[in-house]
Order: sequence, then C-alpha cells, then structure tokens
Amino acid sequence: MLSRLLTPKTVVHAHCDLPCGVYDPAQARIEAESIKMIIQKAGENSDPDFRTRAILIKEQRAELVKHHLWVLWTDYFKPPHFEKYPQLHTLFNEATKLAGATGTKGTMDAKAADDLLAKIDEIAEIFWETKKA
Amino acid sequence: MLSRLLTPKTVVHAHCDLPCGVYDPAQARIEAESIKMIIQKAGENSDPDFRTRAILIKEQRAELVKHHLWVLWTDYFKPPHFEKYPQLHTLFNEATKLAGATGTKGTMDAKAADDLLAKIDEIAEIFWETKKA
Amino acid sequence: MLSRLLTPKTVVHAHCDLPCGVYDPAQARIEAESIKMIIQKAGENSDPDFRTRAILIKEQRAELVKHHLWVLWTDYFKPPHFEKYPQLHTLFNEATKLAGATGTKGTMDAKAADDLLAKIDEIAEIFWETKKA
Amino acid sequence: MLSRLLTPKTVVHAHCDLPCGVYDPAQARIEAESIKMIIQKAGENSDPDFRTRAILIKEQRAELVKHHLWVLWTDYFKPPHFEKYPQLHTLFNEATKLAGATGTKGTMDAKAADDLLAKIDEIAEIFWETKKA
Amino acid sequence: MLSRLLTPKTVVHAHCDLPCGVYDPAQARIEAESIKMIIQKAGENSDPDFRTRAILIKEQRAELVKHHLWVLWTDYFKPPHFEKYPQLHTLFNEATKLAGATGTKGTMDAKAADDLLAKIDEIAEIFWETKKA
Amino acid sequence: MLSRLLTPKTVVHAHCDLPCGVYDPAQARIEAESIKMIIQKAGENSDPDFRTRAILIKEQRAELVKHHLWVLWTDYFKPPHFEKYPQLHTLFNEATKLAGATGTKGTMDAKAADDLLAKIDEIAEIFWETKKA
Repeated sequence: MLSRLLTPKTVVHAHCDLPCGVYDPAQARIEAESIKMIIQKAGENSDPDFRTRAILIKEQRAELVKHHLWVLWTDYFKPPHFEKYPQLHTLFNEATKLAGATGTKGTMDAKAADDLLAKIDEIAEIFWETKKA
Repeated sequence: MLSRLLTPKTVVHAHCDLPCGVYDPAQARIEAESIKMIIQKAGENSDPDFRTRAILIKEQRAELVKHHLWVLWTDYFKPPHFEKYPQLHTLFNEATKLAGATGTKGTMDAKAADDLLAKIDEIAEIFWETKKA
Repeated sequence: MLSRLLTPKTVVHAHCDLPCGVYDPAQARIEAESIKMIIQKAGENSDPDFRTRAILIKEQRAELVKHHLWVLWTDYFKPPHFEKYPQLHTLFNEATKLAGATGTKGTMDAKAADDLLAKIDEIAEIFWETKKA
Repeated sequence: MLSRLLTPKTVVHAHCDLPCGVYDPAQARIEAESIKMIIQKAGENSDPDFRTRAILIKEQRAELVKHHLWVLWTDYFKPPHFEKYPQLHTLFNEATKLAGATGTKGTMDAKAADDLLAKIDEIAEIFWETKKA
Repeated sequence: MLSRLLTPKTVVHAHCDLPCGVYDPAQARIEAESIKMIIQKAGENSDPDFRTRAILIKEQRAELVKHHLWVLWTDYFKPPHFEKYPQLHTLFNEATKLAGATGTKGTMDAKAADDLLAKIDEIAEIFWETKKA
Repeated sequence: MLSRLLTPKTVVHAHCDLPCGVYDPAQARIEAESIKMIIQKAGENSDPDFRTRAILIKEQRAELVKHHLWVLWTDYFKPPHFEKYPQLHTLFNEATKLAGATGTKGTMDAKAADDLLAKIDEIAEIFWETKKA
C-alpha cells in the first residue's frame, strides 16, 4: 500500500500555510509509523522509566499526526473534493480520533497504530487521485 | 534523484528520540521543497504583506530543515558510518548552513533552495546505502 | 450572540487530550477577536515595522484559531452529533479555511475577521445545544 | 463567581503582544479548570499509563496558566492599577506559584486546583473592575 | 575567561519547574544582548527583507526575555525576598514591560535594549545577593 | 560574582539565526546543569509521580542541550575552525549523543550528566580560543 503511495510520485510534499502548495500524506504516516515502533519497543522493555518516556514521546508523535491530517483536511482539500468524495470528512474525523485519546494516545495496543496507519492510507489514496486529476 | 530516494523503500521513516528507530531524510527534503516553492511564489507576487508572510514562513521551514538534519546526524549516524563516509560531517555542516542565515533563511534567491536540495540528496544517498548495508 | 454564548454557562471550558472533557468554543473566538483588533490597529498605524509585527502576530493567532477549532471537531464532537447536525463538517472546514491563508492569514481586510467570528458563533451555538442535550 | 465574571461582559478577551488590547482572565481559568478535571480523572483511574499521561498533560496546562497570568500582570496592568490595588503583585505571584511546582504541577491533590481557581477569580474581579473604570 | 566562568565555583544556572533549583539571570541577559545586536545590525542593513527577519527574530528573543524573567519572579523568589527587597515586584514588572510591546518588541531604538539590559542587571544584583545570603 | 560575569569584558552570549553574532556555550551548559540536578533530585525522592515529572522535564532540558550545541556547530563554527580543530565535528557529535537517548535522556545515572558537562566544557574551551583569535 505504501509502496503504491510513494512509488509513482517523484516529488515529496509538505505544507506551510503561505500556502506553498506542497502537501504530502507521508508526513502524517511517518509519525504514525513512529508510534507503531514506540508501542512495539515499549512492549519489549520492562524498565518503567523507558515506558514513561515512550508514553510522553508517543503523545507528541500522535499530536503531530493529528496536526498533519488537519492541515490536509483544511488546507489541501477544496469543496469539489468533498463533493466527489463524500466520505472524506468522516475519514479525516475518524483518523484524527484514532490518533487521539481514544486511539494511539490512550493505549499501548499495537492494533490502534495499525488502524491509524490504515486510515491514513485510505486518505492518501484519495489524495493522490486528486493530484492526478 | 528523489525517485531513487523514495522508490526502493516501502517504509517511510521518521524520528523520535526514544529512539523509535524510524528515520527518513525525506522529512528534511519536504521542508526544503516547501522553501523552494515559497521563494518562487514570493517572486511572482508583488504584495508586500505577502512577502512578509513568505519570509516568516520560510524562516520556520528552514529551521525545520536544520532540525531534521541535525537529528539524522546525531541520532541516526554512528561512529562506523563516520569512518566509512569521512565526508559526512562536512556534508551535514554545509547542508545545515545552507538552510540557515547564510543560505535559504537569508535570501529569496531560488539557487539557495536548489543547493540545499542537492545537499540533502547527497546525504539521503549515503543514508540509504547505510540502511541497505 | 456572544452574550448568549457566555451567559447561561457558569463553567468555562478548555481542552486537553487526556481528555479532561473540558471544551469551549470561546478559546477559538478569543483568538479571532484578537485578529480583528490586529487588523484594525494595523489599519490605523502607518509604521511599516508595526505592520510587519501585526502580520506575524496575526499569523500566530490565526494558527491558534485553527487549532482550537480542529480540537473541537475531532475531540469533542462524536458520530451522533455529526448525524444530528449534518452541516457540522462543512462548518468546521469553512471556519478553519477562514482562519487560514485564504482568510484571515492572507489578508488585512476586516471582513475576513468578521466572517470568521460569525462562523465560530455558528459552531458555538451547536456546541452549546449539544451540551444541553 | 464565574457567572459574575462572564455574565456582564459580552466581549471575550485574549492577548497578543502587538498588543491587540484584548485580554481576558478566562484564558487562565480555562486551563485551571482543565487541571482540576485532570486531577479528578486521574483519581478515578487505576491504569498507571493513564496517570503518566495525566501528569504530563497537567504539566502543560499548568504552564499555560502561568503564561496567561504573567501576560496579564505585565501587559495589561499598568502602574496606576498597581497603585490602586497594592495587593496585585502578591496576588499574581501567589497565583503563578500555585500553578507551579509547589502547586498544581507538583501534586495530584484537588485542593491545589481549587486554590488556584480561587486565586484566578480574585485577579479576575480586579481585572473587570479596571475595565469598567 | 570561560574557564573562570565555568570552574566549580562559578556554576551557571538555569531553570526548570521540577524545580531543579538551578536559576540564572544570565539566561534573560543573553537574549537581551541578542536583541541589542539585532537592532544594531538592522540599523546597518538597508535590505527590507533583512529588516523583516530582524523584526520577527527580535520578537522571539524578547518573548524569551519575558519568559526567563517571569520564571525568576515566580519560581526563584520567595516571600522573604519580596519582604527584604520591596522594589522587586516593580523591577520585574518594569523589566518585562521593557521586553514587550512598549519596549524592545515595539521599537528599533537601541536605547530600549540598553534600558532592558540595565533593568536585568538590577535584578541580577539582587538575585546574587540572595544566593549569597 | 555576577558583577564579574556581567562586566563589559565578560559579555554573555546567545544565539539567533539573524544571525546576531552572539553565541555562548553557557546556554548548553546551563541546561546540562539542570539535568544533573534533576537526576539527583529524582534519586532522593521516592514519589513515583515526582519521578514521572523528572523524566519528562529532563527530556525537555536534554533536547535544549542538543539544540544549543547544534546551533554552535552549524552557525558559529566556520570551515577554518574545523580545519584548525579537526576533532570538533566528533566532539559535537559525541556531546549531542550524550544529551540524547543513549545519554542523559535515556538514563537516571548521574555519570551521564557528568560526561555531558565535561564534553560541553571541551567545546567551550575551543569556542573561547576562537573568540580570542
């Protein structure tokens, strides 16, 4: 899925609200990958101080996921996109919830990270379709 | 160059200093791409307020480039890497200087952004070689 | 409108993603009020340095508006709310766009601030209805 | 107390150091309310990871309380206010201490949050008196 | 010179709100020195983009001055200090005002930076007296 | 003591990337001193909530050490310095690693803080030599 996401594109995309016009769902995915690894590493380490660090760093990464997704939703996507992809609002709302307290912030369960990654990939697929259009 | 950077890899990489073990030079490149676009857009727009916004946003993006590169240099690369690639220290020092006041922060010249992108690509090439090793 | 917003409630509301369960659209409105005043003050002051400061501070305030609204949209509102108020997604998307580059970030026109304030008030009205429910 | 604070005013107030001239003690109170809820929720939840999250989020909220209060003390209040209300310096110093390590940052005792809220309300009362003057 | 500064008797001091117990007025002074140099460099440079950068960077440095001073006032100084040095509240209030919109934030006049530095030195003198006590 | 520190010959130095030309290794050392005290205080306190706070605050201080050192390495030191002090790249790389996950971030061992302080002092010595040159 990710290979599909990154392979055909030769330009990476970021965002600033000038706007520079450069966006890329990879920014959110990168942080979500990090969350997945943090959960895995915390599961393999019995030092309580390490777990504390894992929790606080995961918190920061999850906040970044939310931010990157919000930016795409508000700054990249335009009314015609929402008309063509009526599920887009719900997708973003669910994805950012999965990054928050009811998702990867609030748990050390790897499944939450997988769910978040899957949701980001759904968004990315639509994103790249709109770029091709 | 970038296609080479992104194509063979199917996992995007980020960083946190748990460390999660997830790194990717794309994070620096994304911000540098943004800088390039900001400079281009500022060149095409004669509104002085827009230029002010362009300068302040470019400042933030360039700071992020520096940060992402510093993270790679300190957190990802290890002594054996510096032994194998003796140019690595200088490369990172030059790249972060190119993102700073003597580079993309201090100018609206598109060449500075191109130089920065080229330097990031040099780093990325070494990075991916070490990942394959 | 605002008096309606603030009068019947005796508990102010904020947010953290514990979540603490404390939310309040006033946080977004406060920053939007600030934007309105910044635009007005910039219009009354011919010092170019003051204008530069006004632009950069307005940028920060507008980013806070976006953040506070995103938090409400993702963290406070739940699926049943979106079902009952189908316009909610669009309202939030429009409000955050009004705070961004195509709205109060990108202009010194007071109308943009007024539009943003009106949109926040629409959201606040729904918010308080759901609190009463 | 709060209803008195918020009822007669129809304009919410924020702050930026342009200055925009928009201030409101509610910003500090909102974060203090959040702290109170965090302490309560941590008391009702036996999951140690939740407690870790509660502590780190409380830390951030308390820092915001300090910041909002400092802003009022430095940016809103002027020498004539300090002359008319000689207790003002001590009030602010005590309130910010209550938000810090010797207060809500350093404890999970709900009383610290109540004391902080009471102190903020004392400040708010003076604030609104000066606005009416 | 540095060896003198860094030898065991002349430990430099910082702050965190654990609290770590490490404080030093030098942190505020360092940023104020920076402000002074920014103003000087802006005066010697006729490039309008450079001036924009100078204004935005000065804004950030001045905010840091305020923060470092607030921390000393709230976290280091205790009631007995305020009793012994009744001018302390006013000193801090004036110093932070000098760093704000009515001082170094709002002007490119070098005198504002000098006034700020002098005020910080007054605070520092008292600070070091209390450390000796 | 402070008067000695602050007299005109012993100007303290900071950094901004205008650049203002004001640098000082003391900024990194101050945060490292704080880390040392945090570790000591955590060792003397058996309250688990205090330890959580110590870990999260130490994390922030260590990040600041890294940042201040990176700034010196990129912004202050120039190619002739690296030629004259060929060990400089390695020194900075080791120092920032000592501040990170494999050093003071990842442990509560006081030795890590001492090692970090010693490394910063090595850098400071070279720094002040170059200032005299």
